[in-house]
Parts: sequence; C-alpha cells; structure tokens
Amino acid sequence: MTLPEKVAQLFGVWVGASDEGGEVAPYQHEMEEPVTLESLLPQGLGQLTRPFGTAPVDAALGALSLLRTQRRIAAAGRFGIPALAHEECLAGFAAWGATAYPVPLSWGATFNPALVREMAERIGRDMRSVGVHQGLAPVLDVVRDARWGRVEETMGEDPYLVGTVGTAYVQGLESAGIVATLKHFAGYSASRAGRNLAPVGMGVRERSDVMLPPFEMAVREGGARSVMHAYTDTDGVPAAADERLLTGLLRDTWGFTGTVVADYFGIAFLKTLHGVAATLGEAAGAALGAGVDVELPTVKTFGEPLLKAIADGEVDEALIDRALRRVLTQKAELGLLDADWDPVPAALAGADLTEPQSLRGTIDLDSAENRGLARQVAEQSIVLLANNGTLPLDRPARIAVIGPNSQSPTAVLGCYAFPVHVGGQHPDVPAGIGLPTLRDALAAEFPGSDIVTAAGAGIDSSDTDGFAAATELARGADVVVLALGDRAGLFGRGTSGEGCDAESLALPGVQQDLLDALLDTGVPVVLTLLAGRPYALGRAATEAAAIVQSFFPGEEGTGAIAGVLSGRVNPSGRLPVSVPRHPGAQPSTYLAARLGQASEVSSIDPTPAFGFGHGLTYTSFRWSELDVEHLQAETDGEIRLAFTVRNTGGRAGTEVAQLYLHDPVASVVQPVQRLIGYQRLDLAAGEAVRVRVRVPADLAGFTGRDGERIVEPGELELRLGPSSTDPRLTVICTLTGPVRGLDHTRRLHATITAEAPGAS
Amino acid sequence: MTLPEKVAQLFGVWVGASDEGGEVAPYQHEMEEPVTLESLLPQGLGQLTRPFGTAPVDAALGALSLLRTQRRIAAAGRFGIPALAHEECLAGFAAWGATAYPVPLSWGATFNPALVREMAERIGRDMRSVGVHQGLAPVLDVVRDARWGRVEETMGEDPYLVGTVGTAYVQGLESAGIVATLKHFAGYSASRAGRNLAPVGMGVRERSDVMLPPFEMAVREGGARSVMHAYTDTDGVPAAADERLLTGLLRDTWGFTGTVVADYFGIAFLKTLHGVAATLGEAAGAALGAGVDVELPTVKTFGEPLLKAIADGEVDEALIDRALRRVLTQKAELGLLDADWDPVPAALAGADLTEPQSLRGTIDLDSAENRGLARQVAEQSIVLLANNGTLPLDRPARIAVIGPNSQSPTAVLGCYAFPVHVGGQHPDVPAGIGLPTLRDALAAEFPGSDIVTAAGAGIDSSDTDGFAAATELARGADVVVLALGDRAGLFGRGTSGEGCDAESLALPGVQQDLLDALLDTGVPVVLTLLAGRPYALGRAATEAAAIVQSFFPGEEGTGAIAGVLSGRVNPSGRLPVSVPRHPGAQPSTYLAARLGQASEVSSIDPTPAFGFGHGLTYTSFRWSELDVEHLQAETDGEIRLAFTVRNTGGRAGTEVAQLYLHDPVASVVQPVQRLIGYQRLDLAAGEAVRVRVRVPADLAGFTGRDGERIVEPGELELRLGPSSTDPRLTVICTLTGPVRGLDHTRRLHATITAEAPGAS
Repeated sequence: MTLPEKVAQLFGVWVGASDEGGEVAPYQHEMEEPVTLESLLPQGLGQLTRPFGTAPVDAALGALSLLRTQRRIAAAGRFGIPALAHEECLAGFAAWGATAYPVPLSWGATFNPALVREMAERIGRDMRSVGVHQGLAPVLDVVRDARWGRVEETMGEDPYLVGTVGTAYVQGLESAGIVATLKHFAGYSASRAGRNLAPVGMGVRERSDVMLPPFEMAVREGGARSVMHAYTDTDGVPAAADERLLTGLLRDTWGFTGTVVADYFGIAFLKTLHGVAATLGEAAGAALGAGVDVELPTVKTFGEPLLKAIADGEVDEALIDRALRRVLTQKAELGLLDADWDPVPAALAGADLTEPQSLRGTIDLDSAENRGLARQVAEQSIVLLANNGTLPLDRPARIAVIGPNSQSPTAVLGCYAFPVHVGGQHPDVPAGIGLPTLRDALAAEFPGSDIVTAAGAGIDSSDTDGFAAATELARGADVVVLALGDRAGLFGRGTSGEGCDAESLALPGVQQDLLDALLDTGVPVVLTLLAGRPYALGRAATEAAAIVQSFFPGEEGTGAIAGVLSGRVNPSGRLPVSVPRHPGAQPSTYLAARLGQASEVSSIDPTPAFGFGHGLTYTSFRWSELDVEHLQAETDGEIRLAFTVRNTGGRAGTEVAQLYLHDPVASVVQPVQRLIGYQRLDLAAGEAVRVRVRVPADLAGFTGRDGERIVEPGELELRLGPSSTDPRLTVICTLTGPVRGLDHTRRLHATITAEAPGAS
Repeated sequence: MTLPEKVAQLFGVWVGASDEGGEVAPYQHEMEEPVTLESLLPQGLGQLTRPFGTAPVDAALGALSLLRTQRRIAAAGRFGIPALAHEECLAGFAAWGATAYPVPLSWGATFNPALVREMAERIGRDMRSVGVHQGLAPVLDVVRDARWGRVEETMGEDPYLVGTVGTAYVQGLESAGIVATLKHFAGYSASRAGRNLAPVGMGVRERSDVMLPPFEMAVREGGARSVMHAYTDTDGVPAAADERLLTGLLRDTWGFTGTVVADYFGIAFLKTLHGVAATLGEAAGAALGAGVDVELPTVKTFGEPLLKAIADGEVDEALIDRALRRVLTQKAELGLLDADWDPVPAALAGADLTEPQSLRGTIDLDSAENRGLARQVAEQSIVLLANNGTLPLDRPARIAVIGPNSQSPTAVLGCYAFPVHVGGQHPDVPAGIGLPTLRDALAAEFPGSDIVTAAGAGIDSSDTDGFAAATELARGADVVVLALGDRAGLFGRGTSGEGCDAESLALPGVQQDLLDALLDTGVPVVLTLLAGRPYALGRAATEAAAIVQSFFPGEEGTGAIAGVLSGRVNPSGRLPVSVPRHPGAQPSTYLAARLGQASEVSSIDPTPAFGFGHGLTYTSFRWSELDVEHLQAETDGEIRLAFTVRNTGGRAGTEVAQLYLHDPVASVVQPVQRLIGYQRLDLAAGEAVRVRVRVPADLAGFTGRDGERIVEPGELELRLGPSSTDPRLTVICTLTGPVRGLDHTRRLHATITAEAPGAS
C-alpha cells in the first residue's frame, strides 16, 4: 500500500445515511471543513461515522444506503477494503425508531450485570443487522463529581459496580459481533468542578484505584476490541498523547490487542485546546505515537497534516504501519477482508434492493422483545429512596400529577437517545418510538382514579406563575405525584447531558420551590425524579411521603414508575450514586477516606441524604446465621463465609446483597469502605437463601507507595448489607504472610452464590 | 543523654503563661490527656507551646511567667537545656494586647513584599522581646478552592505572589531572631471541596508547579529554619509520613537544615484519621522516619508510645539521634546552650522581677509604630473592585452605614487574631487593642456627615426582620455604605477561619438578599466587604455604585477603609484571589489551562467577576513605549524589555505592574497565564517611570513528562498590565536551544526596576 492508502485506513468520514436509500452523504459539521468522498475514496477509507445517528432515516433504507456506499468504497480502492461503520449505542442503538433503553446510570441501579448483558446483546444484534460494526459504548467513567453533565452516561460512583456492569455490556455487545469501545480512557469524569473537558487533577493512585479498574476488567474479561481516549488531560498530560496510558498500560500490561480510536476531534484538540502541539501534524504524530490508531469522526489531522509531517521526517512511518496493522487485523476479524465478503446485512438478506421504497418499514428496531427488556431494566433500576407507607398507592380517588416531567414524552430519555440527540434538529419528524408520559402511564395504571395534571413549573425556567394552580390542584387530590428532574440535551440545551454541567446539585430552575410549595399543602407528595444526576432534595428528603428516584429510565420508564407506585412492581433498584444532602460542597463521593467524610475539623458535613447502594422495597429481609469458614488467609489466599437472607415480608421481593471492604490500617490512606461484591437475591414471601461468599485476598489490593499494586497483611473488616449505609453483618478477618505484589492476572471478583438453606 | 532525655527534646507541652507572673501551667485540652510538668521535667523538655496565645495575660507578666518556667526547666534536667518557646504569629503576635495586623490575604493584596517584611520584623521583635523563639508562620498554601475556611490565612492563589510575599515575611521574622515556620508542607489548601483536612487529589505536576514553589523560595531565599507538615494526605500519602517530601525534597534537594515540626496533633492523626499506622508508636516511627523532628503541641506519640516502639525494635534509635541533632543545633544557634545563657528577655531587662504586679502594663505590644505599620498595610491592601464615580464620596450629607459588619469591632480580625482566637473564651476580658468599628471610622472620617446605622441582618442568621428598617434608612440617605462579609472563628464558630468552610461562595446567611434589597432602593450602594474569602456578589458586581474589598484588614482596617471612601487614601490593593461570578462551580482558579476556563463544551462559565490582580485607583495610568532589548534568548538566557508607565490622572497613585507568562505550546498542558513578576509603582500626578524587566528563561520552566523541571525552547508571550485581565503591552519572544533541565539553583525572579524616563 502507498502511504496515502495506509493513512486512509486510519480515519473516518462523518456521514448520514439517505432516507431514500441513496448513498450516504458527508455530514457538514460546523467544526469541520467539508469533506468529499469522491476525492478520498480512491485511497480507501477506514471508517464510516454515524450513518444512522446523524439524521432520521428509516432503518431499512439506511441499511441500503450504507450497503451502497460500502460497495462503492470497496470498488473505488485498489484493495477493495470496505469501511468499518460505527455508531453510538450509549443506551440503545442511536438510530431513528430504535429502542431507547434506560441510560447507563439506570443499569448501575439494577445491580444486575446479567440483565445488562442481555440488553447489550440485543442492541448489538440490531446494530449488526443493518451493517454497523462498532459501537461507541460503554462509558466506563466512574463518577467523581455529580455536577458533570455526563453522569447519566455512567454506571455510578463505584469502580467495581461500573466494572462489572460495564463488562457485562461489553460481553453482550461483543457476543453480537459488534466491536465494543471502552470510553473514555481515562480520567474524564474527574474534570475539575464537573465542567466538561476541564483538567483532571488526580494523582496516580486515585487513577489506578478508582478510574482504571473498570477498563482493566472490560479488557480482560469483556474482550473489548476498541478503546477511546478521553478528551481530558490528567495532571497536564492529555490522554490522547499519553503513551504510558494508551500503550504502556493498555497494551503492554493488560494485553489489549484491538484499536484505540480518537474521541471526536480529540486529536486536533491537542493543538487547539491543550496546547501540547504546535500544528495539526504534530498533534497527529503525538497521538499516533501514544497509541491512537484511528481518527474520528472525520479526517482533520490524519490527512494532509500527517502526510506532511511524515514527509518532513517529523513522524515515523513505522507508527502508521503499527496502527494500520491493528485496523486491518480488526477488519479481517470482522470478515471485511474475506474474498467472499458480502456487504448485504442480515436484515436486508433476501430483500429486493432494487425497489428502495418497498423496503421502508420492513426493519423493526423496537421489537416487542426489545421493549420487554427495556421495561425489565427500567423496573429493576427504579430506586425507592423513602416511603412513609404511602406507597404502594391504595386506589386513590384523585391523583394530582404535577411537575415539568409529568407530561413530557422525552423526560425518560438521556442525551444520547435518538429523539434527544438528533430529533431536536428535526422537530417535524416523529420520535419513531412510543414515549408515554408519566401522566399517560399513571392513567393506565390507575384506571379507577381521577388523574388531574399541572406542570407547575418548567425544568429550568425561573417562572413561578404556575405554582398557584399546582398547589390548588394538589389540595383537591388524595396524593400528589410530583415529577421533577432534568431535561437531557447537548451543550447547554438541557440540564443534563454532554456539555450540560451544573453549578451545584440543587434541582434546576425553581423546582425546589415548587416542591416546597407542594409539601406546604399537607397533601402527601410522592416525589418522582426523572433525572440524569442525583440532586439534593432539601426538606423533601424527610418530608415527602415517598421518593422514587429514576435515572432517565427509557421508553418503557413511565410504565415502570407507575408500576412501582401501584405496587405491581416491587422496587429493587439501588443507588449507583449518593443522593446529597446539600447542593454545594461538591465534589464528594461515598468512596472517601475518613477525612473525606464528616469530621470535627470542618463545618461542612458531606454525609449524603441517601447513600450509595441504598434502596427500599415493599417487603422486608432478615440477615442472619453468619458462618465464617475461613477468617484468616494468606495474602494470596481467600476468605470464606456464608449467611442467610430471608424474605420476612408478605410478598415477593429482591434483596441486593452488597459486600464492602473496610481496611482499617494500610500503608496509604484507604476509603472507609468500597464495594467488592454484590448479588441480587429474588425471594418469594417467606423464602430464605443461603449465600456463600469467597473473597480472594487480591480484592484487598491497592496501589502502594511505589505505584505498584499490593496486598498487605493485617486485619480487614467485611461489611455485608443491603446498602453502604446499613451493614447487617460484619466480619473481622485477617490476612497473613508477606506483602504481595499483584499483576494483571490478579483476581477481580468475590464469588457470591446463593442456594437453598440446608444445601451443603 | 539517655533515650528518655533525647526523646524529651523532641516534643512540646502546651502551656499558658500566668497572669500573675507565676509559672506557666499546662493547658488542659479536650483532645489530650493531662500532662504534668513535674513528671516530665527531669528528662528535659523540647518546646513550650503557646505560652502567650492560650489565655489572656499581661505581656510583662507572661514574659516573667515564661522566664520562671525556663529557669525551672533548665534546673530540672541534667544538661540545663531550656525549652524553645513557640507562638502563633499568623497576622501578628498571638498575644493579648498585641497588634492585630491585616490577615495574610491582605498582604497578598498589597503586592508589597518590602512592607510585609517590615511588618514581620516588627512582629518578630515583639515576640523575641518577651522570650519567644519560634513563630508558627507564614502560611504558604496556595489557594485552590476559596471555600476552604483558611483562605484568609493564605496570600492568594498564585504561587509567585505567595512565594515572594511569604518569603519577605520569613526574612522579616528571621531578621528579628525568630525561627520562622513554613506551613503547611504541602498540599493542604487543595483539600477536596475546600473541606478542612479532606484528602488532596492532585498529581505530582500540580504539586510541583503550584504548591511547592513558595516553600522552595522561602527555604532558599528566606532562610526559614523550620517547616511544619500539612495535616492532609496527597493521593493517599499523609504529609507527616511522606519521606520523599520531608526529607528527599526538603532537605536532600533544597538543602534545608532546620527542624520539621508537627502540625498540632498531626502525628497521632496518622493513626486516628489517616489509618496508616496501627498504633501511636507506629505513627511516631512513621513521622520520625519521614523527617518530622518535633511533636507539637504536646506529647502524645513521642513519649511512651515511641519509647516502647524503640524498645520493641520497631523504630530505629538512629532516627531519634537525627531529630535530636537538628533540635539541639537549633537551640545552640539560638544561644540556648550557651554557658552564659540568660533567660531574661529583652523587655524585662533591668526590671525588678521580684514584684510581678509592678510589671503589669510595662510592655506595649501595640506601639504607635506597630499601629502605623498596620495602618499602612491595611491601606495598601484594600482593593477597589468597581466604582461608577461615586467614590471618593463627596461630602455626603447623610451616610447610611448598614450591614452586619458595620458595627462589629472584630469584623476586621481573622481567626488567629487573639481577640477571636482566644478572646471568645474570655468574654469578660477586654480585647486589649483598639478596634474601632466601621461606623466609628466613618464618623471620624466624615465629621460633616450625618451617620445613621442599621445592621439589617446578621452574618449568618436567616433572619430578615431587619431588612425593612435598613431599606427605610437607606432611602433617607445620600449613600449607603453596606458592610458585609464574614465573622472569623474556629471550627464552625465563624463563617471564615480554620474549620469554617463554605458550601459555596454565596455570601453567608441572607446577606445577598439584604444587598439586593438595598440595591432595589435606588440609593447608591457602596458595598464594603470585610471578609476572609472572595464571594460571588450577584447583581452587585454590576449594580453597586462601588465595591470595596478588604480581607480582614486588622485593627487599623476600618480607618483605612474610611480613607479609601473619602479619598484620603488612593486605593492600590490588587486581588490576590479571583472574585467569582457564580457561587457554585468551585473549585476554580485563575491559574487554569484553556479547558479550565470558559469553553464551548461546558454550560458553566467560570470566568470571575473580578480577576486575579484586579484593582482600581482614583487616578489613571498610561502604559507605553515598549522597547524590546532581547526578544530572543537561549533556554539558559534572559529576555529583556522596557516600557513606560505614566500617571495621567490628577492625583498621586500607585500602579502595580504585573508580568504574566503565556506559553502557547508546551509538552504538558500549561495555565493560560501565570504571574512571574510584579512591581508597585508610586507615581505623582503626571509623573512617568521607565520600567526595565529582565526575565530569566528559568521562569518559563515547568515540570515535564518525567517529573523533572525543564525549560523548553519555543515561543512565549509576555503580558504586561495592571491585572491578569487587562494586558496593556504584549511581547512575543522566543527561547532557543535545547530543552534544559533545572535544579534547585534555578533563578526564581524576574528583575523589575523602575527609574526616571530618559535615565540610561
């Protein structure tokens, strides 16, 4: 291959598929110079960027459009190499008419990796069926500041939860043949003050112990075949130019063999935003040298600037060959280099491709099976924060459904859901999926109740004119269902989502005032949050009749919430992020050392209103019969214990058994506790289960003084319970023997199994 | 010496001097077991802790009390070694009746190291005169989050400003024979979310380039003889147990030869708060091993726990000898080991010590010279943030002086000023110094005006009952002088000060509401802040007639403010910390990279209302005639330029010339600009001065990818102007040659000289 042919494999072009079934067309993005396929294709093309997620297009016609362009690409180049097509799949395939699943923060709330894996497999199958190869998910960033707009895209504030749920997502996607892309590697979520892309100030230990473990798990156990660099710099080194991270750690230590792709425009940002490169050619060389293989979304630095830098001897052509080998290896694995490669995707197999319009509507990306799964994820993700007995609602005669999120169809969607991400620019195009409002769902759930509604306030306006009507309506009702929270959007167009950061964790606009006004009526208020991040709730934390927290629960979300309110669904979600008591005093995290929590030396008490892992149900559970099999182990051994959980209430329900490690003395400061295992336990009324736990000493490892991961001998406390704030059983155990070094073969999981009591 | 005798030199006992001239008595602190001198003294005693700053005591009687105890200590031990007496001197000698100078944040605002040096020398002379040897100041922490309660104790958010002003303080104190103590080494001010003692998350580069430079300067140029470790951990390693910091960097690299002392109770905190030691003996060993020589304030770990650890072979006795050598060397330098050592301090020389009561009142720690200097520092520290022409006030007929800080004598004092720090526990004891309120000062300054007053609101109460009377009063006046801000205190008893952290940078309590209500009256409001930290001011930033920012300006502060309001004083202070526009979105700093500032990718704009270095005057200055002598230099060379500043207004005034470095491309991300030089220029009306600047290439150095300090070749931009937000002259210059490594001999200063124009 000539140098231009090689380089052409290393970038994408942003395109939109044609809704008429014609070829894809380059997307004219304000940040980019226009690109013409005509001029590029003779050299070949590495990637096609977002064919389905750029404009609304019928799935079948989009697939046909993509197919035609793939044929053209293969025909235009000397080697007949098709492009790899990638698409977003943050919370479902980002395509018009595709199922909008709950956002990742909801996945975290399910504490159910198996379910998330199933969902991801379904997402992957839909994507693969129309010709997409790579999905730009999952987001494995660990929440460090809930003011960040992208919190909704994460799975929470604990690296073990993020790692296990995220790895399940990777496994599901990869099992469908889609290249999963781990992002954003690494540190992005710790942007200063939660401001998107702001510098990250953490040290090597926090990075190793908090930010990197989900990526390690997803590489080692998920088999992810791609990684996307983070936009941010950490302690002054931008991820896109960080060879120690992208090559030393990722490949040389963890053994990753896939591709590293750029976050959109991220290579150029080395020049324009980070100031670590003087020219785009320098930026390209720095990224290639660090280990970025593919420029996305389009060619900005890997074209002429890179070719010139190579010609000038500033960039070694061997770096091109290294990246090319990775890209072509991946294309070969995907069958794109096979002699009998057939560009017709499964969903179009056998169709008459000569009559594009006859294809319209023939591919369903929102099947009943999809919707059922979306419903299941939503139901398991809803967290009952508080309940004075008002829930489940007992056939109320009149329900006042109030709040800005009570009648908004998109209140269930995050910023990467198609109707929000793209739909906003196409207001005349229908959403493509059913999006019942909360009011609709409650009307269906409570057919015998009189449902009356009022917005009361907007999401982020300062207008309080609607308060009077809302409180009036409330006074005439048996119960108020108050739906508050966020409006997802991009870059300032929402209150949550990419580029929609918050100054504090106060509810946006005048929502807290509306909430307080309704609490003042004395009518029971069931506060129902449809939000992208946790918010401080003021007096509602103790005065609301009940609080139902959902994190953009997807297209089936309002039905799930209604089910929780009626009792049809017994809530089982647990908080993947703490709900703060105060709107200020950020950042904070449950994963804090003693001095990061309440102390006598500061007037600020960051204790949350509802802690990590918290969630109520409509039944009750008793934890008992703790039996310690191995209280002591070598630093390469294993602690073993067992206990019984019994559903002592009157109905079936789910307990989420959570295992936390408390290390009282270590050579470096440790968090007071951290999650090292969990297991959902579905129990019928009266049913009991015997839970057996095996904790490898590896899980007590951390990054020591010299930057190496070690396990130290000494006492440990294991805390078992239904949340981080409610330990039910506590075990002191001891590790003995020498300080032990851990490498990338370290064990990553506790083993938690549940069986009928009495089983051996 | 026996082991117990050696160890006894390594700790202090917290005592209070006797107001009757009897011996000092151990201070019964809630955090400590009682200590009896009787049992300790046969072994000797390293330090006496806070003899003057523990309870109100007449200076002469306190000196006598200290003298008596020193004699007893010397007599009790086999070697006759007296103790080293230390005291706080954060903003003046922490003794009853001693001058309360403006707090360090005000020193930063003066941009006048020479004046601060003079003040420190005076503070040192007063301390030395009564028998104190060591002062626990200056605080060299660089502000990273203005919510932190101790911001008032710092000199601002720029390391060069903190380093230069702090070093001047050290030089002044040391020139008076007082051992200066640099604190808190290092990282404390970056405690997460500004919560006192919370973990610090920064990486090595931020630490090296922001937090450490003031310490390096004060060690190398100030000759500080003691350093105090920080309470905090950075990235998991507590400073008190950080050998790389306390020994590797401080001693082996910078060449420090003095003592390292513990922050109060900090060694025990290694066990109780950090969890890096299982026992107090382990904590003692970890601290000693890291390089902590002296435990303060009293013996908790360096007594029995340490002796036991040595006996058990867990701590090497050689570490004791190392610390002992440093302590005794210092005592020898102070003359304490001289054969003719005389414990009678200068202030008691020749006095009849047999009649204690005759001594009462004979030592004046608040002389007219002190007060004059305190006034001078206060006057130079007051920052005129905004002025629509209302100031200076033109003989108003009636002034309404409103606000919680308008009539509070202690509104000018920080949390380490004696009347606040200790006085609060002795409400019946007079303050010991004159503390005219702002109302009093205005009455004196404007004898022809009718002064009417109302509090309007409390500092931090939620009571708005006083608003009506305040607005009523305002409507009848020509101008409102509204005094808002903080009440200093300790551990939650104030709104600013140690342990008094803020959730956000909103004014405490209902002060913003009072401010808004007064703005609504339409009467011109001169907002006058007496505060410990910068606050967001809401609409006042643009709607107030004028804003006068003071940072606890000390006992002469209200007179200085009144002088600014009348025009008797032409304001010359400049902001050492940015004044934010929004109360949330913290932390932020002017010292931010591009992505740490306003950007298109975040909805949050952290641009301050008033930036670092900003401050107005009552005259005007023209910057002109830029002449570049050396635009290009080797990476070990020097850039030279000159320019002219002319006072173009009608009265004398001071311009503060500030020099900022902008490095557009570097191998690691750089702040957009940082201060590398400044100079106050006092100019008569019409007067001009030629300013010559020499910038060694060393000042462009930063910590590179490998953790070493380097200077890189390439373009630099030098920005000259009266603030960081108002560059008047800009120069592009170039460094050539190889990347150059810097060591601890690097040059630390630009040279800025001013002479009459036309001088050669």
